[in-house]
Amino acid sequence: MTQPIDAAQLCADYWSTSIIDIHPGSIRVRGYPIQDLIGQVSFPQMIWLMLRGELPSHAQASLLEAALVASVDHGPQAPSIAISRMATSCGLPLNGAMASAINALDDVHGGAGQQSVELYESIAVLIDGGLALDRAAERGVDAFTEAHGKYLPGFGHRFHPVDPRAGRLLAFVDTQVEAGVIGGRYAAIARGIESLLKARKDRPVPMNIDGVTAVIYAELGFPAELARGVFCLSRAVGILAHAWEQRGRNERNKGPLPRQIPYRYTGEAERQLR
Amino acid sequence: MTQPIDAAQLCADYWSTSIIDIHPGSIRVRGYPIQDLIGQVSFPQMIWLMLRGELPSHAQASLLEAALVASVDHGPQAPSIAISRMATSCGLPLNGAMASAINALDDVHGGAGQQSVELYESIAVLIDGGLALDRAAERGVDAFTEAHGKYLPGFGHRFHPVDPRAGRLLAFVDTQVEAGVIGGRYAAIARGIESLLKARKDRPVPMNIDGVTAVIYAELGFPAELARGVFCLSRAVGILAHAWEQRGRNERNKGPLPRQIPYRYTGEAERQLR
Amino acid sequence: MTQPIDAAQLCADYWSTSIIDIHPGSIRVRGYPIQDLIGQVSFPQMIWLMLRGELPSHAQASLLEAALVASVDHGPQAPSIAISRMATSCGLPLNGAMASAINALDDVHGGAGQQSVELYESIAVLIDGGLALDRAAERGVDAFTEAHGKYLPGFGHRFHPVDPRAGRLLAFVDTQVEAGVIGGRYAAIARGIESLLKARKDRPVPMNIDGVTAVIYAELGFPAELARGVFCLSRAVGILAHAWEQRGRNERNKGPLPRQIPYRYTGEAERQLR
Amino acid sequence: MTQPIDAAQLCADYWSTSIIDIHPGSIRVRGYPIQDLIGQVSFPQMIWLMLRGELPSHAQASLLEAALVASVDHGPQAPSIAISRMATSCGLPLNGAMASAINALDDVHGGAGQQSVELYESIAVLIDGGLALDRAAERGVDAFTEAHGKYLPGFGHRFHPVDPRAGRLLAFVDTQVEAGVIGGRYAAIARGIESLLKARKDRPVPMNIDGVTAVIYAELGFPAELARGVFCLSRAVGILAHAWEQRGRNERNKGPLPRQIPYRYTGEAERQLR
Repeated sequence: MTQPIDAAQLCADYWSTSIIDIHPGSIRVRGYPIQDLIGQVSFPQMIWLMLRGELPSHAQASLLEAALVASVDHGPQAPSIAISRMATSCGLPLNGAMASAINALDDVHGGAGQQSVELYESIAVLIDGGLALDRAAERGVDAFTEAHGKYLPGFGHRFHPVDPRAGRLLAFVDTQVEAGVIGGRYAAIARGIESLLKARKDRPVPMNIDGVTAVIYAELGFPAELARGVFCLSRAVGILAHAWEQRGRNERNKGPLPRQIPYRYTGEAERQLR
Repeated sequence: MTQPIDAAQLCADYWSTSIIDIHPGSIRVRGYPIQDLIGQVSFPQMIWLMLRGELPSHAQASLLEAALVASVDHGPQAPSIAISRMATSCGLPLNGAMASAINALDDVHGGAGQQSVELYESIAVLIDGGLALDRAAERGVDAFTEAHGKYLPGFGHRFHPVDPRAGRLLAFVDTQVEAGVIGGRYAAIARGIESLLKARKDRPVPMNIDGVTAVIYAELGFPAELARGVFCLSRAVGILAHAWEQRGRNERNKGPLPRQIPYRYTGEAERQLR
Repeated sequence: MTQPIDAAQLCADYWSTSIIDIHPGSIRVRGYPIQDLIGQVSFPQMIWLMLRGELPSHAQASLLEAALVASVDHGPQAPSIAISRMATSCGLPLNGAMASAINALDDVHGGAGQQSVELYESIAVLIDGGLALDRAAERGVDAFTEAHGKYLPGFGHRFHPVDPRAGRLLAFVDTQVEAGVIGGRYAAIARGIESLLKARKDRPVPMNIDGVTAVIYAELGFPAELARGVFCLSRAVGILAHAWEQRGRNERNKGPLPRQIPYRYTGEAERQLR
Repeated sequence: MTQPIDAAQLCADYWSTSIIDIHPGSIRVRGYPIQDLIGQVSFPQMIWLMLRGELPSHAQASLLEAALVASVDHGPQAPSIAISRMATSCGLPLNGAMASAINALDDVHGGAGQQSVELYESIAVLIDGGLALDRAAERGVDAFTEAHGKYLPGFGHRFHPVDPRAGRLLAFVDTQVEAGVIGGRYAAIARGIESLLKARKDRPVPMNIDGVTAVIYAELGFPAELARGVFCLSRAVGILAHAWEQRGRNERNKGPLPRQIPYRYTGEAERQLR
């Protein structure tokens, strides 16, 4: 028999959290009264506090902020953005369009940052074990592609020969390394991979946006999985903006192609039942 | 017959957007090369640029930022947060948990800001038509409750006698009115509603977080529906933080109640088929 | 203070349901032991039992089944189907692709059946009030379009001059009316609307699949909103089938258009920050 | 340069499908005119046709139907069902509540059937390689738990000492084996696992609903991943029924616990900024 006295306690423990403490008239986030944070900390600082438990310095937050700014959108050819627009045309409110779209930021579409951090970390472990950077990059990349297939996340881009976001972001990383905000270890590892790929392919396979934001997340101490989570926060902005632009149009049930263009049927010819 | 020459053009027009222009090696957001924005504009400025088409001033962005910071979380009793944690325990990655949860920020859970802006705007129209604030507030509130039922969004809170976020945010609004950043019209309207409710109910029904963030969105010129969209961006942070905390636990298939506590069945007694 | 003894009771009541009663070793659905239902009732009968609380006759279930069979798919140009395929290419498992897609079956894409039932019911009320069918149809249609805009759900199809599903389904309805399974009232109302539209437009605007399934749902006593819910169960099949077909392809991050076809940018020309 | 003539062709191929062929006035599913299927095939037959490309026999369909009937619901303590009810209370329409809930049928909550099929198939391969059933079951189970951890899907239930659905379903499987509808290989494998677990744990760890439905899917030739997909179709019914029951209640923003029961905060004590 459940003893009556346990139920409230069981429930309290079952839904316990270390993130937020709420009482009538009082909200504290990670210990800070919410009214002390409002107007005092930036949105990226608040994101950091919520995810990590402590407030970052302004310099740390500026790196996170640059990553958040860089990834908001990549246009309607990206499945997440197209889904947002199509869902909106089906009658969904903004929250619903965002949900269908953010859901699609899965392993293939939203997982590259997470996978890049995992790759960098695996190479860092090899270096800690005594390997030189170039050798560690080689071994790490080989192990990664063996385990996950030929797509190496964070390097190369099927559309951009050089990703215009990557160079700018990496330059910003470098200034923060010089300023002592971050150590620079993962920037070096990522560049080591870049060198390896260039040598192997005999052409540049430059770091892309996911490769550089992964450097930032790793330098800042974010666990790999949060690279995906933070990317979702960033891309949510583009998803929302496109849903909103779509709202202003009169399209109903927007499919992927203009109605005038048919798709090809490749299945069974007409046949009769029985 | 569709003429071949039309298809590419049809497709290009069908997926046209004014938000982002992408070419190999080039990404421009609202006309700005992305590399000029990274490290230069804040995340709230970027959100504004994406949604509105132009960059805000720093003072304008600081108001948006305060609203974004204020709404990130209201604990695991909020359905969106609970859904995020439950979904995580079912095996969903962070993007998936965020999707199920953000989806729930619909009319009742995430719509109060939007509805408050609509309410304020309806009162502003009445004032433009010649009514005094108190009379316009009365008429606007009555029309709103007649159309939408007894819940007046933005005022009162079932948990907080006084919402600790509201006073701080409203004070920040006031400083920005004094500084000439915003006009103050919607702050006055919201206070007019507060006065009306206090007089009618013979007790204070103070502005809550949704009521004040709606003042901010209205003062900054955001259309009502975007109040919901921006709230989703803010609450997405709490949803992500709770999904992440949940990830660190060993719970599988987390239901709403601890397993030891049964639910009550209220249906048909046992019966036999046929 | 909450008294300890209340908590378990509060929880039990809070999550009470009349649908299913579960105890260790025992599951009863609407009072029927689950083992009595398995292998004995059809899936449509089970759907009915779950939604309505009682088992339908075989004849009633056959009508529901015909509606379920008719609506499973309308090809990859339908946004729900396209979303399912795009989401799959982003790495989502089948449940996730189904979620993003079913979410899009909102007012515009999945709401036509519900709206048609509402339209029929409004006309039934007018007939109950003494109007003849033709006059009631006229008034009902006018009131509906005034309230909801020019799209009259359930009639006409932007792609099919005559919906091949509608005639077959309606013939099946007629046989069940003759057999006394259903009364035929809503079939008559729907035909009344068809006559009205033909007279007004001087060309046929025939009932489509949503118009006929709405007849079935209304004849069977389903509340209007469940017409949407049951449609979601049906279309879930097509959504799943297309997700599964997509799984067999090597596409990653499938956008709406082939990569070779660009979209058109319509926004601000390139500009400099500040 | 893209040649104009290619665009329509590219689009047609890009969205090609073998499932459904649609032309004005004509819809063919897997080659069958839709009007020939409506009223002629059962919903489970239609599900099979859509997923597999061919129509099943009635006997085959009856097995699929039994699995569909058996899994519709497991009450509001299941996260998917709770999410459906909570989402409904947030204002979501039925499609939206279904989406948030079906999304949660991921690896942990909805993946047991898929994992069981994979387990059975791995044992079948060992038997094909010459091992006896008991030895193959041993090797297969060990390999599975080594790869995936201690939870063995399909066997044992944290709530039901004996799952009331499993025995009934398995008896139905046996009759179909006797009738020659299916071969019985996977039923034997599942029973082999059951024997192994009983011997190892010195107590019965009986097959649960997922273990038996996986037998059915494997016997019927469904690929493992479709076990998850078909389960989603089944559980969608319970998700819809609970959303609909919830719609009839006046709850707004239903959280996991009754409001009177607080959760426990486990984080940082109150602290001051800076």
